[in-house]
Amino acid sequence: MNKKKFDGILLSHGGGGKETSDLIGGIIFNGLYGQDAGSGYFYELNNGNGRHKGGGIATDIPKTDMTEQNQKIKLLEDAAVLKSPQKIAFTTDSFTVSPIFFKGGDIGKLSVAGTVNDLSVMGAKPLFLSLGLIIEEGFASGDLRKIINSISEEADKTGVRVVTGDTKVVPAGKADGIFINTSGIGEILYDGLSVYNITAGDIIIVSGNVGDHGAAIMSQREGIEMDVEIESDCASLWDMIAALLADGIKVSAIRDATRGGLAAVLNEWTVAAGVDICVEEDKIPVSGPVKGFCELLGFEPYQLACEGRAVFAVKSEFARRALDILKSHPLGKNANIIGTAEAGGKINKVILKGIYGVDRLLDYSSGELLPRIC
Amino acid sequence: MNKKKFDGILLSHGGGGKETSDLIGGIIFNGLYGQDAGSGYFYELNNGNGRHKGGGIATDIPKTDMTEQNQKIKLLEDAAVLKSPQKIAFTTDSFTVSPIFFKGGDIGKLSVAGTVNDLSVMGAKPLFLSLGLIIEEGFASGDLRKIINSISEEADKTGVRVVTGDTKVVPAGKADGIFINTSGIGEILYDGLSVYNITAGDIIIVSGNVGDHGAAIMSQREGIEMDVEIESDCASLWDMIAALLADGIKVSAIRDATRGGLAAVLNEWTVAAGVDICVEEDKIPVSGPVKGFCELLGFEPYQLACEGRAVFAVKSEFARRALDILKSHPLGKNANIIGTAEAGGKINKVILKGIYGVDRLLDYSSGELLPRIC
Repeated sequence: MNKKKFDGILLSHGGGGKETSDLIGGIIFNGLYGQDAGSGYFYELNNGNGRHKGGGIATDIPKTDMTEQNQKIKLLEDAAVLKSPQKIAFTTDSFTVSPIFFKGGDIGKLSVAGTVNDLSVMGAKPLFLSLGLIIEEGFASGDLRKIINSISEEADKTGVRVVTGDTKVVPAGKADGIFINTSGIGEILYDGLSVYNITAGDIIIVSGNVGDHGAAIMSQREGIEMDVEIESDCASLWDMIAALLADGIKVSAIRDATRGGLAAVLNEWTVAAGVDICVEEDKIPVSGPVKGFCELLGFEPYQLACEGRAVFAVKSEFARRALDILKSHPLGKNANIIGTAEAGGKINKVILKGIYGVDRLLDYSSGELLPRIC
Repeated sequence: MNKKKFDGILLSHGGGGKETSDLIGGIIFNGLYGQDAGSGYFYELNNGNGRHKGGGIATDIPKTDMTEQNQKIKLLEDAAVLKSPQKIAFTTDSFTVSPIFFKGGDIGKLSVAGTVNDLSVMGAKPLFLSLGLIIEEGFASGDLRKIINSISEEADKTGVRVVTGDTKVVPAGKADGIFINTSGIGEILYDGLSVYNITAGDIIIVSGNVGDHGAAIMSQREGIEMDVEIESDCASLWDMIAALLADGIKVSAIRDATRGGLAAVLNEWTVAAGVDICVEEDKIPVSGPVKGFCELLGFEPYQLACEGRAVFAVKSEFARRALDILKSHPLGKNANIIGTAEAGGKINKVILKGIYGVDRLLDYSSGELLPRIC
């Protein structure tokens, strides 16, 4: 493989033929499956149409092994063939974040964690991912390698597999570097989690500091200098969530706080469940640097995006135990009980009980606070 | 809903909040689920984060009904919860076609048919689709409506359901109108189809005229005037493919000819299966206008993209019967037997037996023949 070809992505890398197979074989398959090539994986370049279709053929693998990385990858097929559990969760997310590399992660890590988390909050163990790339002509191939490696690393953390993919290249000026879509399939291990289950009396817990991702992206994009560089919280949450659910904690609903932050999750819950939610400002964990950033720029940290925080509504008798379990997990060490769902009136609302006894409404962020945060 | 808001898509339509819920509720949900709203569907706007997560909760639906449009849609969840068969196919495709509206279809129809076909050629009945939209700021909302309607119409033809989605808006100049990703889950009804099954002696059948989609897009994009406007063959092929498989025809492999056209499929097959493939030029169906277009511009019709044609490798004793079944389907009326797989040498190749007895190699298209064909 001629490395020189990869100084930048060319339109011909998306046109089929030799260049496409170099791109897909050299960067994408190598990055995703390369290290496993000796242990039962089989792959061949797709010479023809710029797609990296991966078909995992699971033959006689027992159900308990289904989630392990032991399904042979057969490429050159049009779809992955997979053994599946009876009840699955299915989700999709596109990632257009700018900048694509940021402190604490990059668009690759984010695109795995985001979809892993959407499955996880439904009580579904993430099993399979698809990977759709839209790459702008001229994109640096070194950057693509880094992104694919991030995808591979982040997928390994949860044991989720990229089993099918697609790559398109569009002319310069018709995209912005790279856009990634991941769709995910998970096995429902804990059934019945739903925003519609939340009732008055449920205790609201957040798994860690809020606003880190939004503040990290915004400060980096706008070139705002901080004493301490803010790091995104971008992380895959399945392990932490599974620990809670495996313990038998009675959970009504879980949601990962992404665009719109904690405020969006809580407001959506009031609408879906017909409750008010009352949270105490001094209980909501916010890091010092994010607090400083928000004071400097007049933002509400509760409206800034997270990418590695989950919000839980749990039945009150389980709240202490839930908190203990979360705090014992590295991703949940700053978890806290922040409030309660209450019987709602005609218009449901989120009430923020201020530190000095002054209550106010915590609303959605408005307008285009920060496009391309994820 | 204030219709005036929708003259064009704004960044704030992707930022969460009221505008996002107007976009998703007003255009996307309405277009996808609107007509069914009275018959058991439940939907609410997602006010928070610009994602239109759709969760289809299947409770006590018997397995035979699983593929019917009878699963309740519960929105505001992070993933669709679905009953699934034991063995599924999973695939993804991003669509960046330009122009987005073309004779015979649009990017919406294409994004459903493309993924439906990738499942179909694996013997999988398409069940569920995800829908990821990346929209450029300023995109006309009337165009978005048209596209969503096309998606809905095309999905209905196969009975596949859009069960989860995601919408992002990026600033003007950072995308080109609209990009769509669809991922699909299908139930494997006919097991064992694989390009690796093709053996010498297999008969190669194509389901109709080749090159229509490529010629339609290219002539429209470049403003080439033809006597007869060429129409894309864009179509969902599950019904036709299922008819063949249900009859018990012994099929080694099926592939939909997309980017790279018939030539790419046949060349990939030679690589995967280690055979040569010998096809007779006068047996390959090409329409008069596409022939004229190719002669005018020096293209090889066999290298132009199709979006509604399948190529079959069938065991020879089933070839006639397979052809009859295909020809009895409206999408297969121009089907033909075009050649044979033969024992291959060291380097596998596709041989095109010319009309005047002159044989030549049919190679992949090279370079960037036509970016953004799909």
